[in-house]
Amino acid sequence: MKPTLFTCVSPALIHLYDLRDAVVVIIDVFRATSTIAAALYNGAECVIPVDTVPKAIEVSRSLNGIAAGERDGRLAEGLSHGNSPMEYSSDFIEKKILVLTTTNGTRLLHMALNNGADDIITGSFPNVSAVCDYLIKQNKNVILACAGWKDRFNLEDTLFAGAVISRVKENFTIHCDSSLTAAVLYQNSKNNVLSFAKNFTHYHRLVNRFGHIEDIDFCLTEDIANVLAVYKGGKLVSEKT
Amino acid sequence: MKPTLFTCVSPALIHLYDLRDAVVVIIDVFRATSTIAAALYNGAECVIPVDTVPKAIEVSRSLNGIAAGERDGRLAEGLSHGNSPMEYSSDFIEKKILVLTTTNGTRLLHMALNNGADDIITGSFPNVSAVCDYLIKQNKNVILACAGWKDRFNLEDTLFAGAVISRVKENFTIHCDSSLTAAVLYQNSKNNVLSFAKNFTHYHRLVNRFGHIEDIDFCLTEDIANVLAVYKGGKLVSEKT
Repeated sequence: MKPTLFTCVSPALIHLYDLRDAVVVIIDVFRATSTIAAALYNGAECVIPVDTVPKAIEVSRSLNGIAAGERDGRLAEGLSHGNSPMEYSSDFIEKKILVLTTTNGTRLLHMALNNGADDIITGSFPNVSAVCDYLIKQNKNVILACAGWKDRFNLEDTLFAGAVISRVKENFTIHCDSSLTAAVLYQNSKNNVLSFAKNFTHYHRLVNRFGHIEDIDFCLTEDIANVLAVYKGGKLVSEKT
Repeated sequence: MKPTLFTCVSPALIHLYDLRDAVVVIIDVFRATSTIAAALYNGAECVIPVDTVPKAIEVSRSLNGIAAGERDGRLAEGLSHGNSPMEYSSDFIEKKILVLTTTNGTRLLHMALNNGADDIITGSFPNVSAVCDYLIKQNKNVILACAGWKDRFNLEDTLFAGAVISRVKENFTIHCDSSLTAAVLYQNSKNNVLSFAKNFTHYHRLVNRFGHIEDIDFCLTEDIANVLAVYKGGKLVSEKT
């Protein structure tokens, strides 16, 4: 029998899914998991996701790392580096430790841990192929966990779930309305993701309010930082797929 | 300025929305809100939604009403009437009081009340025009509240939200990813809703497990019981639109 695949559309629903013995894919397209892919692809030693700004500062100090993060889509107060993938070129991040805290993505990762997950990766369009290769190879149940926006459903994360489903559906039993929705949305828009994204709530927040248009391009480009980001011993590290 | 419209895809997210001073549309397409439309359309004096089976029995006894309901898609133990719109023809229900308890829909209605809602109607394909006429006339903010299945996202309720949005969008400011998703899903499938529905989780539960195919047809037919169902003083009553 094939393993199952479910899509969870909000962190507030994560307790409804059995995360033990499953691969949990943390999805925060705009921008945490895209930034994680960028940093690891560009040679960061690891990314340490933490849940608060003070903890980011504390951990980065003790490990000589870079404290980074955002709150409400903006650079978090007290940090000098943000949550944009464009900040983490290899010149800057190679062999360094990035300590990252974000409104939705890193928070969901910690919620997944608290709900029993022990096989966690992060997913985004920039590393979609690495994610799909891993899911097929592991041959375990899968939970595609969307970070959303402050517990609300968002489109970019669900759309990415659809991108994954379109690639792995033959390998899984999928009987879940949110997965079906994700698949329909992706099928519908895969040839014009960027123009579809202009209607998303978080696009407006990032582009119209904060001017992050180049981030959006990066975050919606498939396989531009195609590295597998695996959570191991408190750190996200890159692994060959 | 136009009032706002949001779609809430699960009861577990209802606390994220401001229900005060808004019209809250409770949506449980399969089958509670379709059954409510059927009963009121066929002349029921009122439908009293209650949250437990013992309460349904108690209230129906004191008011000489009919205790009805389901748990997990089946007739609830201790009740002799279920949650099928087909059970409530005018021969049976005219001038009677229906006391109804269901897994998702009536539960969500009580959650909405507890979250401050004071203008509540129920919505389903059988009474979609009455719902839309009311929303346009009220000219207040709107929350389309999907009952889902045990707090999970489901497609039929979100699809109905899309049907409403397609009719009222000119009258509201809609800036919400779940509303956009609902609109895309409805736009995509409005000409073949019945065949699209065959992929839904709850379709399988109702049809394959319990054989309720005639319920599905009814629940997906627009305006077949086009009555406005308004919650007033603990009862759902029909009102002329």
